Amino acid sequence: MDFVTVRYTTKKPKLKNPILIEGLPGIGNVGKLAVEHLIDTIKAKKFAELHCKDFPPQVFINPDGTVKLVNNEFHYWKAKKRNQRDLILLTGDYQGLSSTGQYDLIEKILDIAEEFGVKELYTLGGYGLGHEVEEPHVLCATTHKELVKTMKKYGAVFKKNEPGGGIVGASGLLLGLGELRDIKGACFMGETPGYLVDPKSAKAVLQVLTKIINIKVSFSALEKKAKEIEYIAHQLREMENVSKEKTEELKYIG
Amino acid sequence: MDFVTVRYTTKKPKLKNPILIEGLPGIGNVGKLAVEHLIDTIKAKKFAELHCKDFPPQVFINPDGTVKLVNNEFHYWKAKKRNQRDLILLTGDYQGLSSTGQYDLIEKILDIAEEFGVKELYTLGGYGLGHEVEEPHVLCATTHKELVKTMKKYGAVFKKNEPGGGIVGASGLLLGLGELRDIKGACFMGETPGYLVDPKSAKAVLQVLTKIINIKVSFSALEKKAKEIEYIAHQLREMENVSKEKTEELKYIG
Amino acid sequence: MDFVTVRYTTKKPKLKNPILIEGLPGIGNVGKLAVEHLIDTIKAKKFAELHCKDFPPQVFINPDGTVKLVNNEFHYWKAKKRNQRDLILLTGDYQGLSSTGQYDLIEKILDIAEEFGVKELYTLGGYGLGHEVEEPHVLCATTHKELVKTMKKYGAVFKKNEPGGGIVGASGLLLGLGELRDIKGACFMGETPGYLVDPKSAKAVLQVLTKIINIKVSFSALEKKAKEIEYIAHQLREMENVSKEKTEELKYIG
Amino acid sequence: MDFVTVRYTTKKPKLKNPILIEGLPGIGNVGKLAVEHLIDTIKAKKFAELHCKDFPPQVFINPDGTVKLVNNEFHYWKAKKRNQRDLILLTGDYQGLSSTGQYDLIEKILDIAEEFGVKELYTLGGYGLGHEVEEPHVLCATTHKELVKTMKKYGAVFKKNEPGGGIVGASGLLLGLGELRDIKGACFMGETPGYLVDPKSAKAVLQVLTKIINIKVSFSALEKKAKEIEYIAHQLREMENVSKEKTEELKYIG
Repeated sequence: MDFVTVRYTTKKPKLKNPILIEGLPGIGNVGKLAVEHLIDTIKAKKFAELHCKDFPPQVFINPDGTVKLVNNEFHYWKAKKRNQRDLILLTGDYQGLSSTGQYDLIEKILDIAEEFGVKELYTLGGYGLGHEVEEPHVLCATTHKELVKTMKKYGAVFKKNEPGGGIVGASGLLLGLGELRDIKGACFMGETPGYLVDPKSAKAVLQVLTKIINIKVSFSALEKKAKEIEYIAHQLREMENVSKEKTEELKYIG
Repeated sequence: MDFVTVRYTTKKPKLKNPILIEGLPGIGNVGKLAVEHLIDTIKAKKFAELHCKDFPPQVFINPDGTVKLVNNEFHYWKAKKRNQRDLILLTGDYQGLSSTGQYDLIEKILDIAEEFGVKELYTLGGYGLGHEVEEPHVLCATTHKELVKTMKKYGAVFKKNEPGGGIVGASGLLLGLGELRDIKGACFMGETPGYLVDPKSAKAVLQVLTKIINIKVSFSALEKKAKEIEYIAHQLREMENVSKEKTEELKYIG
Repeated sequence: MDFVTVRYTTKKPKLKNPILIEGLPGIGNVGKLAVEHLIDTIKAKKFAELHCKDFPPQVFINPDGTVKLVNNEFHYWKAKKRNQRDLILLTGDYQGLSSTGQYDLIEKILDIAEEFGVKELYTLGGYGLGHEVEEPHVLCATTHKELVKTMKKYGAVFKKNEPGGGIVGASGLLLGLGELRDIKGACFMGETPGYLVDPKSAKAVLQVLTKIINIKVSFSALEKKAKEIEYIAHQLREMENVSKEKTEELKYIG
Repeated sequence: MDFVTVRYTTKKPKLKNPILIEGLPGIGNVGKLAVEHLIDTIKAKKFAELHCKDFPPQVFINPDGTVKLVNNEFHYWKAKKRNQRDLILLTGDYQGLSSTGQYDLIEKILDIAEEFGVKELYTLGGYGLGHEVEEPHVLCATTHKELVKTMKKYGAVFKKNEPGGGIVGASGLLLGLGELRDIKGACFMGETPGYLVDPKSAKAVLQVLTKIINIKVSFSALEKKAKEIEYIAHQLREMENVSKEKTEELKYIG
């Protein structure tokens, strides 16, 4: 096994000028939720698994009792209409654990993408604000200046110096290392409190992305998940308030 | 010395379609205790030592005053009856320290296993519950769906989504990386509090495993160790209770 | 991408016996501030970007909304007068994250420097004192004994056993590994409290360095920054005092 | 620069069947103190410097203002009498920082040792007890069983299961990896509180070692250092007692 190993689980698909879309685990799991939702709703098909020595040495247990070595997975989707493009969708269990490993992993992912002719890519993630977000904006950063205007048109937001720490991890490196290969791209970051997984933010990100790729998808599954998370968040706040009140009561009595 | 170095301490044994059984240090040391007990009772013979740059830079001191470089060790056992199979048993002082090192080490172990014709492997470990366990179940996960039914027959238990974190370390990777080489396998995880070494859980694991490999072994040595550990655990609980009572007394008086 | 990758952003400049000057992030950011100020005021020109797998996997976001993969950058400046020398100026976003990575990175930087004929180098940094500094001295250490006298002449200070911990990071390694290649050099360390970025210390360092390289520069930009930092430091001290007083008041009342 | 680089600072010495003696930084700095004392008193001559990417990226500052890249150093000493043997003495600023690096470094040191014909080695270190030691014993562990008896004869002590954690670092690995090359050896560990550098323990170790290598050395320099350390330890205990008394006084008054 090389540092990164790719195993094709179907015949290599023939794709025409495909766009790569990445959503791996991260803040609020926004990117992963978004890409997984897209894969499910457009019925993209898995064609390759990627294992990496910089992932944890771990297997997950499937519902049927079998194990699954942690991985990243490539899916593809072929355009149905004239104004659409073929897609490669990347998601997975982990990002690389080490800095060096992240670079090696992303280089390999770009190698594979280029093999299929990718010259354009979008990376999805969350932008943690640390406080509640009513209507999450979708922040954006691009590899090329001319893309800024385009992305604004689709509803993405550019705020000077935000995120202040830049973009760390796969979503950032795919742009940075991609640019060195003349691949154009943009990162879409849904605002999120960042405490829990955030399907609402994932929906916001997809609302921008699907306009760019000319695909209409239902968001009902994400909306249902968002309701569940909202309920959990509500419960947590309640518990916190009760415990605060109790503390105050005690203070009063004492 | 390569990253992993194997030193044969006897002539390479000739084995027929052997099964690999692994038990390295881990939660409750269940896997290591189980494989060591098996080696002792069936009188398996050491044939190779494995050193790895991802082990700690450490020697242990033998009772006779000599040193021993930390290692993993391979033992073999040749089938005595028609319904038995040759065995390779793997145990040792450490697992690899780093993620990448774990992958490299397990790949090398699988290389060696394949050299001897291994197409089937069982890995043993503990499943930490964080509370006392009266009768430890033996949880299981397999590489192939058809093995699930077989393992249930032998008394192994499959609980949906348990362990929730999957299987981390050698016991997981041997299955995950083994499957990529078409090696079939299962991991047996004895339930354990996880605080102390747990010979009781090791016995439970061996009760399942020995049925699969058609070997009858005495568990008296493990049972004796289990009694000793139970005594220590009892003492620790006593001490805890005494200190709790004292605290309460103080509160009452004050 | 190799472990370290260099991308020339202009044609390779032809330089005559150039001096390498390094200032990367570190204590008080003294070295980076100094080299950036020098680059700005003498209008040195960027000619190469260096990416390294030991930098964080990160892109920064430019004011125009595009991304920039974190890097180190080489600039050059050609001598204007007889008593001046061509310069290569190195600064950047990060130093290597790991020990091994630092060695690999500095070796590569020295390879590039030697390609351009560098036989002399100066590294700039801060020396953290942990207390306020009225007039920062510029401590020095050199690769060769004969340079000590020269550097004293230019105002650098040598204090026995200071810094006690030696010089850690790029500024130290460039001297240490440079010496193995017969490159002469010195490190200039401006005294600094070390709490905040310290333009005053950077100015002190440049006052010594510019004498050596026979370049006169205005320090007004650094002085302006120093005033701003002084103001911030003052505010922080005020806040601390207020909070101390409040605590004392409370004690008095209670 | 390779991962480990050796630079000969003199012509390679011609040595006859030399013994390697190692003392690098560690608990109580016992090994380093002992080997440095031996080098000084027998006037061993430095012949090689070893740099390693697993050392910290650091230079130290010499008293004359020049820098010194952190390293390990080889010295040699040629036998003066019939019953003596040529010696190679290894000491230095650091051990490798990572596990893998330690293995690589020790392998390289053994390569060099074998080049000079080393078939026997002694490693020196401290054994931290965590409490005061009146007369430090010198514990021992050997590569071969027949050496145990010999070392006892010279005053070394073998205690079953001590040190319980084995020997970690260069002193352990040189034995463990040396044995794989059929190099015989022993580690001598001077008992030490382990809080401060411990010249008394270093002297105890040398008293055993010098009998083995048939060299008489004065210990006056070590004894002087030991007195200084004892004085410092005394001062520290005083300070601790005073602060304890004060606390008690306060309790009494309050």
